[in-house]
Formats: sequence, structure tokens, C-alpha cells
Amino acid sequence: MTDRALPSWNEGPARAAILNFVARVTTEDGPDYVRPAERIATFDNDGTLWCEQPLQNQFFFVFDRLEALAAKDPALRERQPFKAFLERDIATIHALGKQAAFEIAFATHAGMNADEFAEIAKEWFAAARHPKLNRPYAQCLYQPQVELLAYLRANGFKTFIVSGGGIDLIRAFAEENYGIPPEQVIGSSVKLRFEAGDNHVDLMRLSELNSFDDREVKPANIALHIGRRPILAFGNSDGDLAMLRYTLAGKGPRLGLLLHHDDAEREFAYDREFRLSPLVEALDKADQYGITVVGMKASWNIVFPDTGAGKAASRPAS
Amino acid sequence: MTDRALPSWNEGPARAAILNFVARVTTEDGPDYVRPAERIATFDNDGTLWCEQPLQNQFFFVFDRLEALAAKDPALRERQPFKAFLERDIATIHALGKQAAFEIAFATHAGMNADEFAEIAKEWFAAARHPKLNRPYAQCLYQPQVELLAYLRANGFKTFIVSGGGIDLIRAFAEENYGIPPEQVIGSSVKLRFEAGDNHVDLMRLSELNSFDDREVKPANIALHIGRRPILAFGNSDGDLAMLRYTLAGKGPRLGLLLHHDDAEREFAYDREFRLSPLVEALDKADQYGITVVGMKASWNIVFPDTGAGKAASRPAS
Repeated sequence: MTDRALPSWNEGPARAAILNFVARVTTEDGPDYVRPAERIATFDNDGTLWCEQPLQNQFFFVFDRLEALAAKDPALRERQPFKAFLERDIATIHALGKQAAFEIAFATHAGMNADEFAEIAKEWFAAARHPKLNRPYAQCLYQPQVELLAYLRANGFKTFIVSGGGIDLIRAFAEENYGIPPEQVIGSSVKLRFEAGDNHVDLMRLSELNSFDDREVKPANIALHIGRRPILAFGNSDGDLAMLRYTLAGKGPRLGLLLHHDDAEREFAYDREFRLSPLVEALDKADQYGITVVGMKASWNIVFPDTGAGKAASRPAS
Repeated sequence: MTDRALPSWNEGPARAAILNFVARVTTEDGPDYVRPAERIATFDNDGTLWCEQPLQNQFFFVFDRLEALAAKDPALRERQPFKAFLERDIATIHALGKQAAFEIAFATHAGMNADEFAEIAKEWFAAARHPKLNRPYAQCLYQPQVELLAYLRANGFKTFIVSGGGIDLIRAFAEENYGIPPEQVIGSSVKLRFEAGDNHVDLMRLSELNSFDDREVKPANIALHIGRRPILAFGNSDGDLAMLRYTLAGKGPRLGLLLHHDDAEREFAYDREFRLSPLVEALDKADQYGITVVGMKASWNIVFPDTGAGKAASRPAS
């Protein structure tokens, strides 16, 4: 059984839809053949490729960045919104809503150059552990999705991330862990300022937002970065609905997939009530829009990569 | 001699610098080895990969678009700046300067969706001929550069275009003619608006500029789209200087190349005086910044692809 495609996916309608779609677009003499250059697949990141509870992982990175900043400037601890972040006040962060919360997060990365940021991010990923899952972030990604990305690439697809999270934080992680190089990561971004004197050249991160890559902005950023409509898209929230609809509205064979977190035992069960990234309209209208809903509980036989530490390691800490 | 690398490049310092650089970064046990994922090469388009005289080719596309629009709305012929464009008033267009002239060009593409634009652009490239060179645009590109792009890719490089021209017009041309897919084209862009009703999904082009990809914006857009500093960059004007300096300022082996148009017989001879894209500072400070100047006349044994029509076909029309 080890050479069965997508081993962490259970037999069932979601796996069948994927295998059937890939077979159709790769059959050279078939009516639905798509040449490799047009086999573009876009994946949301938070909640689609890895865990986003109780907060998107970017916030845990920001908490640690703020600790470092507050060690130098203790007044930060009393200044909102940083106070809420430093106190890990999750309810307050949820109440901010997705864009406002992320904009605060991005602002804490301002004033350094792009290379410094990349180095700090890589160091953090190497050392940090997810506070609820109690494991390194590289083991908070979904094993079935890692297999799906590799399976698509083995079938001539080019895989992209299209995320509301910060583009540079994802890039510090995606190549090693998802096999997705930086130039295939699209995300939210801040403006950068080029600075050059006779003896220095720098690209500085500003606090001003360049693009918040969520909802209707996702298709526009796909057009900007990729210049080609995806034939497959995978998301998990209303933030992905525009990307899914844009994908499905193209001519020829299309597949739109929506992960539904219905697995409280192995991961988390949530949809409408998650204020940082609710799933309402995409779930209610999935049938109407031709979106395939992937229930985590029924579709996946494991969720997280096997850490070799037995079953307990794949359950969230309480 | 047909299997000599870069056959359209003459023996000399420019070709030697390229071959030497590629040998260094691809020698696995050498001190300058660069793994393939980091072999990023960025090329300007107008004046670097193809002819930009007497105007960047985008303007010839715009002239034809405006003719189609003026056929429906004759009042356009009397309204500036469209009047100057419709009259092919090159001096007036030059006087506008690069960004203003391009912004007018982009505005003439507003109001259609992204798919419609791509179709119009592809049709135009298939039918139109360059007014001075009197040949299809696919034969206005520089044969030595097409060879260089292919040579770099054969050595594990990923090749990107980073142009001040409109990103979508370049994409309609680059895959077939340069072997560069849409997702590896960076250029100036307008804002796009996602529109969806129950039964339609569209991405509409607006007239508002998203990014004018020239000068200091080029490194910022490289960071946004690629997320990795190039190790090789090739340009031909001051609009490329920031990209060249950003490339050369990275750690490890770097190559920055600047095409100098000094070949009035086979192409055009110009630098400082070309108001739409002058070459002044990059030429004056090439030595100081470590930029290798590539004189067209001495470096290339042919300029344009051989059309099979004899020598006359490779000379500009008067």
C-alpha cells in the first residue's frame, strides 16, 4: 500500500475528485488535456496547509518578536495594541478581525531590511514550538496536503501559495517544508523602500501595507504574480471564496476544494465562529459554486506528520 | 562551430564574463557554487531583449488600439494626449517622459477584463509589424539574448523579465518568444477589480496604476514577486541601475550587465539623449559599481534573428 497515491487520504469522494481531475488534465489524447505550463494550482496557507488555531502562526512569531522589542523598550508592554499581543490576549486579537490584526503584526517587522527579516524568520522556525500542538511548526502542517502538493508537481503542476499571511514569513518556511520556492509564494506584503548610497544598497521594510492578500484581492494578486488563471484551488475560509470562484469560472476542467475543519479530536472543529477567518458563505454556497468540500475527519487518515512519538503527539494539547 | 555556446556572441570580454560566471556558480565543489534554486537571473525587456526605438513597442500596440477606439469615437482624434498618439507624434511622446507616456498607454487598456486583453495582445503580436524594422515583433528581439536566456536555463538558472512595460503585454509574447512563462514576468501593472455576481466572475482592468516598474521600484518588485535577490541582472538604461546595484550588492558571485546601443548600422546608436529611457548614470558609474558594459557592435555577431531574407532584412528601415 505504500505506493498508493496520496496515502494519507482516505478512499472517498474528495480523494476520488482529485485523482479523477488529475487523470483528466494529464491524459494527452483526452478532451480535458491541459498542457503542463497551464497546470497552475493555488493553495491558501493558514488552515489549508497548516494549523491556524487558536491564531494564525504569524501571531506567535509576532509575540516572540515583540518580546525581543519589549526587552529593549519596556514601555511597549503598556501600549495598545502591543499590550494585548504581549499578553497573548487571544480574545482581543480575534475581535480586531483579520486585516487589522495582521496589519499590527506586519508593523512589528518594519524598519529592518529584507535580508535581516528573512534571517530572523528562519531562526524562529528552526527553534519555536506551537503552543497548543506542542511541536515545531514544521510538524503543524497537514501531511495529506504535503502529499497532495508533491502529487500535483509529479503530474506537471506548478504549485503556488496564495495567503493572507505575510509573504516573507511564508517564504522563510515554504521551500523546505512544502517544496514551494519563494517565487511561488503570494501573500500580504508591506511596501519596501530601496535605499542606495555610494557604498550601501538596502531594501527596507516599511510599516505601510502594500497589499492585504485576502478575499477579492487574491484573484487580483494571482493575475499580478502568476498571470494565468489556476485550474485547481484549495482554501478553507470565506477569504478563499473569490480565488475559488475565479478558478472555477475559467474555461475547461477546474477543481475547487474547500477544507472543512470538523475534526475536534485530531485537530480543531470550527467554521462560522472563527472571527479571524470565518467560513460561512463558501460553505453555504459550495454546491451552487461547484466547490468540493473536504471534511478533514472523513477525508484524512492522519492529520499531522508522524513524529515517531506515537499517537499522543498528533493530538492538540488542551 | 554550431555547438559553440552563445554562437551569436563574439569572442571578447562580455562573452568571457558570462561564461566564466556561469562556470563558477555551477561548479559543485568550487568556492562560488550557487545551488540551482538561487540561480535567479533578471532581464529588463525594452532595449535589453528587444528593440525599443523609436519608441518602446508597447506604444505601437497602443496606436493600433487607439485606432480601433477612434473608429467608434472619432472625437478621440482631437483630444490630447490621444491626438498625439494617434498622429504618431513621437517628439511629443518623448517629451512626456517614460512614466507619463506609459501611464497614458495603460489607460487605453482599461475597462476590459484580463482575458480579453490577453487575447487582443496575442492577436496583435501575430499580425503587427515593427514600423522601422519592417518585420514582425517576434523578429525584433535580439538573437544573442534569446541564446543567453536559453544558455542560463540550461545551466539551472530561472530567468525573469523585470520591465517598465506593461506586465500583461509582455506576458502575451514572452512564453513563446523568450521561453519565459507569465509567472516569471514582472512589469508595470494597473489595478484590477474582482467582480462577481451569482452568474459571472470577472477581473476588470482599471486605469489606475498599481506599480510603475522602473528605477527604484524594480528591486522592490523583485523582492515582492521573486523573494530572492538575483545573482545576474541585465539592463540597458538608468531605469535598470537600481536592479543592477541590488543584484551586485548581494553576497557571493554576482554579474551585472549593461547593454550599450552603439550600433547604428545594424540597430540604433543612442544613450543619454533618449528621453523615454536615458542611459547616463549607469554608463558613467559602471566601473564604480562593478557593472560589465556590453557594447552591441563589438559583442554580437548578429543582432536580430535571421529571417532567411538576406542581410538587408537585419537593417532598420530608414
